[in-house]
Amino acid sequence: MNTPDSVVALALAEDAPWGDVTSESLLPPDALADAQLVAREPGVLAGAACARAAFTRTADLTGGSLELLELAGDGTRFGAGDVLGRVRGTARGVLRAERVALNLLQHLSGIATHTATFVDLVAGTNARVVDTRKTTPGMRALERAAVRAGGGHNHRWSLSDAVLVKDNHLAVLLAQGIDVTTALKGVRAQVPHTTTIEVEVDRLDQLEAVLAADVDVVLLDNFSLADLAEGVRLVRQRSRALVEASGGVRVDTVRAIAETGVDLISVGALTQNSRTLDLGLDTTVSA
Amino acid sequence: MNTPDSVVALALAEDAPWGDVTSESLLPPDALADAQLVAREPGVLAGAACARAAFTRTADLTGGSLELLELAGDGTRFGAGDVLGRVRGTARGVLRAERVALNLLQHLSGIATHTATFVDLVAGTNARVVDTRKTTPGMRALERAAVRAGGGHNHRWSLSDAVLVKDNHLAVLLAQGIDVTTALKGVRAQVPHTTTIEVEVDRLDQLEAVLAADVDVVLLDNFSLADLAEGVRLVRQRSRALVEASGGVRVDTVRAIAETGVDLISVGALTQNSRTLDLGLDTTVSA
Amino acid sequence: MNTPDSVVALALAEDAPWGDVTSESLLPPDALADAQLVAREPGVLAGAACARAAFTRTADLTGGSLELLELAGDGTRFGAGDVLGRVRGTARGVLRAERVALNLLQHLSGIATHTATFVDLVAGTNARVVDTRKTTPGMRALERAAVRAGGGHNHRWSLSDAVLVKDNHLAVLLAQGIDVTTALKGVRAQVPHTTTIEVEVDRLDQLEAVLAADVDVVLLDNFSLADLAEGVRLVRQRSRALVEASGGVRVDTVRAIAETGVDLISVGALTQNSRTLDLGLDTTVSA
Amino acid sequence: MNTPDSVVALALAEDAPWGDVTSESLLPPDALADAQLVAREPGVLAGAACARAAFTRTADLTGGSLELLELAGDGTRFGAGDVLGRVRGTARGVLRAERVALNLLQHLSGIATHTATFVDLVAGTNARVVDTRKTTPGMRALERAAVRAGGGHNHRWSLSDAVLVKDNHLAVLLAQGIDVTTALKGVRAQVPHTTTIEVEVDRLDQLEAVLAADVDVVLLDNFSLADLAEGVRLVRQRSRALVEASGGVRVDTVRAIAETGVDLISVGALTQNSRTLDLGLDTTVSA
Amino acid sequence: MNTPDSVVALALAEDAPWGDVTSESLLPPDALADAQLVAREPGVLAGAACARAAFTRTADLTGGSLELLELAGDGTRFGAGDVLGRVRGTARGVLRAERVALNLLQHLSGIATHTATFVDLVAGTNARVVDTRKTTPGMRALERAAVRAGGGHNHRWSLSDAVLVKDNHLAVLLAQGIDVTTALKGVRAQVPHTTTIEVEVDRLDQLEAVLAADVDVVLLDNFSLADLAEGVRLVRQRSRALVEASGGVRVDTVRAIAETGVDLISVGALTQNSRTLDLGLDTTVSA
Amino acid sequence: MNTPDSVVALALAEDAPWGDVTSESLLPPDALADAQLVAREPGVLAGAACARAAFTRTADLTGGSLELLELAGDGTRFGAGDVLGRVRGTARGVLRAERVALNLLQHLSGIATHTATFVDLVAGTNARVVDTRKTTPGMRALERAAVRAGGGHNHRWSLSDAVLVKDNHLAVLLAQGIDVTTALKGVRAQVPHTTTIEVEVDRLDQLEAVLAADVDVVLLDNFSLADLAEGVRLVRQRSRALVEASGGVRVDTVRAIAETGVDLISVGALTQNSRTLDLGLDTTVSA
Repeated sequence: MNTPDSVVALALAEDAPWGDVTSESLLPPDALADAQLVAREPGVLAGAACARAAFTRTADLTGGSLELLELAGDGTRFGAGDVLGRVRGTARGVLRAERVALNLLQHLSGIATHTATFVDLVAGTNARVVDTRKTTPGMRALERAAVRAGGGHNHRWSLSDAVLVKDNHLAVLLAQGIDVTTALKGVRAQVPHTTTIEVEVDRLDQLEAVLAADVDVVLLDNFSLADLAEGVRLVRQRSRALVEASGGVRVDTVRAIAETGVDLISVGALTQNSRTLDLGLDTTVSA
Repeated sequence: MNTPDSVVALALAEDAPWGDVTSESLLPPDALADAQLVAREPGVLAGAACARAAFTRTADLTGGSLELLELAGDGTRFGAGDVLGRVRGTARGVLRAERVALNLLQHLSGIATHTATFVDLVAGTNARVVDTRKTTPGMRALERAAVRAGGGHNHRWSLSDAVLVKDNHLAVLLAQGIDVTTALKGVRAQVPHTTTIEVEVDRLDQLEAVLAADVDVVLLDNFSLADLAEGVRLVRQRSRALVEASGGVRVDTVRAIAETGVDLISVGALTQNSRTLDLGLDTTVSA
Repeated sequence: MNTPDSVVALALAEDAPWGDVTSESLLPPDALADAQLVAREPGVLAGAACARAAFTRTADLTGGSLELLELAGDGTRFGAGDVLGRVRGTARGVLRAERVALNLLQHLSGIATHTATFVDLVAGTNARVVDTRKTTPGMRALERAAVRAGGGHNHRWSLSDAVLVKDNHLAVLLAQGIDVTTALKGVRAQVPHTTTIEVEVDRLDQLEAVLAADVDVVLLDNFSLADLAEGVRLVRQRSRALVEASGGVRVDTVRAIAETGVDLISVGALTQNSRTLDLGLDTTVSA
Repeated sequence: MNTPDSVVALALAEDAPWGDVTSESLLPPDALADAQLVAREPGVLAGAACARAAFTRTADLTGGSLELLELAGDGTRFGAGDVLGRVRGTARGVLRAERVALNLLQHLSGIATHTATFVDLVAGTNARVVDTRKTTPGMRALERAAVRAGGGHNHRWSLSDAVLVKDNHLAVLLAQGIDVTTALKGVRAQVPHTTTIEVEVDRLDQLEAVLAADVDVVLLDNFSLADLAEGVRLVRQRSRALVEASGGVRVDTVRAIAETGVDLISVGALTQNSRTLDLGLDTTVSA
Repeated sequence: MNTPDSVVALALAEDAPWGDVTSESLLPPDALADAQLVAREPGVLAGAACARAAFTRTADLTGGSLELLELAGDGTRFGAGDVLGRVRGTARGVLRAERVALNLLQHLSGIATHTATFVDLVAGTNARVVDTRKTTPGMRALERAAVRAGGGHNHRWSLSDAVLVKDNHLAVLLAQGIDVTTALKGVRAQVPHTTTIEVEVDRLDQLEAVLAADVDVVLLDNFSLADLAEGVRLVRQRSRALVEASGGVRVDTVRAIAETGVDLISVGALTQNSRTLDLGLDTTVSA
Repeated sequence: MNTPDSVVALALAEDAPWGDVTSESLLPPDALADAQLVAREPGVLAGAACARAAFTRTADLTGGSLELLELAGDGTRFGAGDVLGRVRGTARGVLRAERVALNLLQHLSGIATHTATFVDLVAGTNARVVDTRKTTPGMRALERAAVRAGGGHNHRWSLSDAVLVKDNHLAVLLAQGIDVTTALKGVRAQVPHTTTIEVEVDRLDQLEAVLAADVDVVLLDNFSLADLAEGVRLVRQRSRALVEASGGVRVDTVRAIAETGVDLISVGALTQNSRTLDLGLDTTVSA
């Protein structure tokens, strides 16, 4: 499992496999620097543990002091110009850790901020904004934490911990002449009792067979608003299953989708297309 | 160093640590599927080796056949609807590899496509479009290859393989009362003869001290177009150094920047803010 | 995640870090051997993939041929004397793989066989026999597969993929003056919608607060048979939650426990105290 | 090589790949707990270093305090109800480390206790009780330490560090028409002078050829008591080799085997079939 | 990337996979020792960070105190009999770390000392003494640091960070009918602007085509002194390229080679054939 | 444990972390090359498995064909000019694998050749030439195999697999007031019966106490030839222990040392100061 510390270790090794040839040949080893983490635009912070790890590991690697004096926590909302943290140490250390710390903070805070936009838009409705498996290889745990920092919720971790039957699965069943309801009951008979079963449908007329199998969650993919509302009504009538909507979820559509009464709205763009947030490290040095 | 294969191994482990509970409990092990990689929008392909690795490794993991019949190469330009590849194998295998293959192809092709936009805009000028160290942890080698697939060029790999003296370095020298020209000559005396020395300046009046040290590249950061042109003129007059421009590089500014005569234009957004490209895997099954 | 192949790689490295000094100094490199995997007592097979990996990897390591001609699959029931597999190859290879293959087959088949005993005893009731987290470090995935090979079911994988509130958690809530029902509702509000919530109770009078929170599974720990039956009745009356029994589950008690109507019976002994099954590798050599 | 720390790292990652969803969503981060390690039955302790590592690493992972106040050392003999250790820290930390610490302590103390039973039974004789290569993959070093904690001795570590010629090796020699005595002398000529040579025989009439080769240890496998005694006599008469007995060693037979005068009695069951010892962590919390 | 710490971890694991059977069975755990690192011959120190890591890691592994009281830094010149460092701690710890610390210090100080011999011989000339890729697998970073400790300079790190076109490359171009000058210009067009291009020539008449391509460095391999001087003259006349000499560089030839005016002299023997320096650890113990 | 394959993987990653920038930008991907491994001086081959691994792995990494047509085996004696192997494949592949293959072959064949010199010098005596723990970190297994290829024998693998009591151990015993004979008997009582006990003495008068403890090997360190002969006589008279000589072993002294009758002569220089053997890869290309 990737942790802030393991991701930072990888990033630092990738970014300076043989040391920092610039600082080591240019700067006196004992020259000191002070740096402030400053927001250049408003947003929501995520990745604080990564920044912390970047400075801690770099202190070890460079053998010099590097102290993180303050750092806002994940989920902090901030405005442009706000100071989010301060670090003090050798100039060599600060400059070596800078890019890795910023790459992670900017990427993850971008996700948190994007998520918060969606979460704010559905405020007051029944709907949770949830993420998907469209994450960056090796970064899923961090990106999921960023979604939570932005007020969103997580979907399943992986293919291993929850059943999600998609259109392609149903197509295979169809091609093999296997009855959907029977097949879904077979899944329930095999998987651990702690494993939730969710099934995606593309049309309202698929709901019948799915509800007959007593699934836990129904995913209505790419439905019109009217069909979403009708889907919610049908599910509520027949079962205790939760209803998730996906497809076509954008800033300008999410509120209306939430108002159809769905329980969950999954948004691939949270982790796949969030803009990097503009954060900077303003460094000051003294004689 | 991360390779397509090592990144895919990580991604597959992260996405199915304990197998694919859906397919394994739902689909017959011998059900087959055919899938086409289809472009949903025009772009430039990158990440072909990752897709190949995703299917190869999944075949090993699932013990079933999975054959990559065709796959376009990195750098291929395509239109919406174009078929970029075909895979055939067990339905379990195709569905397990799908998300990992797409996550990588979409991310990397997004970078290649974004890069190509910039490269096309500077066509006919002297300027190279180059990347930066603003990459995703663990993915730098793949993202750099995507930049090349889009027709761009790479900057240095890391802090270790080239000197890049930035404003913060100069500030430390200033604070320590160290003369810039002398310090830069000291760098040359220490680093391998294969290590290129580049120095960033923020104002034209800093050029003098830098050129006096006989550096290889001068980086003009956040200059106006007029100052860029003047910077190029001054550098050409005094040295054989290359000139790089950075800061404020956007689709609407890059052409004018290139026309100032700079040799290199570095664009952080190539790897940091490229939109994910919409590619899909269309699966068909047969009885 | 540990797989049969990764566990075997570890085991082979541990068992012959610098080669097999006996065979390499004693046996001609081209001497061949034939070996049969023979059951010395009746049981249920598990670990077939491990045995396969042990022979495959050893062939690579020793550079000689080693062919697995036949091998029964996980879940195969066998009698004493049954031949479960055959391997042919260099004597050096067969003898080097032997101990690792047998250590894994014997341990895992022991678990499968023990599980089958419990599963057979509850046949015809509503109850599933399930495992626990009392597994051998680094072997959980393999031991869970062995439980399935024996006809049992798996419980949650880890602390990460399902909520299981135990007596100690409840004690913390009590000490902190936190209301259980409220706290459980708070859990539901935070965890992914795919995460199942199970709560352990030690006494019938704890059920009320738990059921009020609408949990997914109730675990009745160390209940008398009468209290188990009463617990099942109360849960069924008030909720759709599943009921799990744990504590004091032995071969002589499991049937009566199942007959109280519980849905799940968790048995730590499946993975923690199964006897190693007696399997042997009978080797024959020819001139 | 696996150490207590590396095994614990693996176990913790396996048991909570993405954190502890229960405690993290249910318990206040600063709620504290006190826990006592209590013996529920008499035995001999092993695995103290593993328990220590489980709490230390969990403190790092959870970022909260977790202090091991006391812990008995490996080899400590205890009665039912004895308190073997105490830990204090955050409730989240204690509950996350609990299962891993107990899984290791129970498994290894089971081995130590089982070993002690055998060792006590041969007290006063010449015989050492020794282990075998029938260990759990990845746990050999820890299981061997548990055997020593129980008063037993270790046999060779692996196939690499001592020669042990078994019946199958002799069968290969026979099939290849190779003289045993000559072959064994060839082994001595090749292996390091620090490598001990042990040879297994199944019948008394095999002893002659083995002793002629001046081996260091003779292993009498599955001999009757009378033959064991005769074997010891023959070996003592002819050589300085040690004599090891194996096969059919049980609690009810080990004393008589020891009294035949053998130097070593190897018992696969020590590591392969020891019962898990019942140890518990009794947790108390305060407001 | 290998660091002093990672190399030491590997070395300690290799040298004591299962502990130190001698000290652990012979010496009281609390017996203390004092040790001095003494030079048995004059030289230049390298590997100080490795020695430090050996003692630090061994303290962790053995659980006992082990304190490095003093240690000279890399680059220190010393005479026979000089004390270079002192360590104090448990006898078990000192004796376990000793061999690993010395193996690294002796090897790396041998390289530093050998390098210093060459560097001293070219004093006052224009020439740098540089290393090559003829390094020990897994030790390149440490061996390069040792070259620097001896006053030498490093060549490129690897095949990845600089272009070095050798005779075999030119032979391929020739066989394929590719023009050298054109091909070299093609290289420049592709590689990052931070990548230096060096080309090896074996004869003076090859210079023309190479210089026409505006390369950064010309390597004159196995040239006579006269041809070297002529090569330098030709290059200086036509270009700003640096000139490197290689081949036949020995203690008795290096001065004359340097006096031909070359900028760089690469010496494979620095890392490939330096004699191990005689350093010892003199241990004293007290009651 | 390091194997030829794992060492080669490390070496290739170190030597081309991001590919071979020269060949990839200069040579057509399909240009082919033929290469012969040629001895430039007489010697004994070692490292054949490493060379094989270097070409095999590079073929995988570069995706092109690379075929090892012939390769002499470890232990082959050759003269200057002899062809030891042939490889054919893409020029890119041959040139990428070349340095790694040669670095290993040259280093290991240097050890084998140096060893053979010593072994030849003691021909006809009773003495084995053995190696020590003075090996290169991460390369011990390969260097030991090279010693065997040269006709030498190995000493113990590590601190873990045999007892070797040295002068420093004896000094600790003395300082602690512990009787040597008693302490050595205590070691025997603890260590596995497969663990050999060797003790180093510096003076003849130390022999008495050591022989009284019935050790397996006596190491006479830095003895004069007369004292060596006397030491052998005393040991033979009193025990069956082997006698090892160490210290001052050189090409000009080893024969006389062997003629004192010792069983073993350990030579640190085999692995620590062998000269790299001159082997080359002669490449030919065709249109």
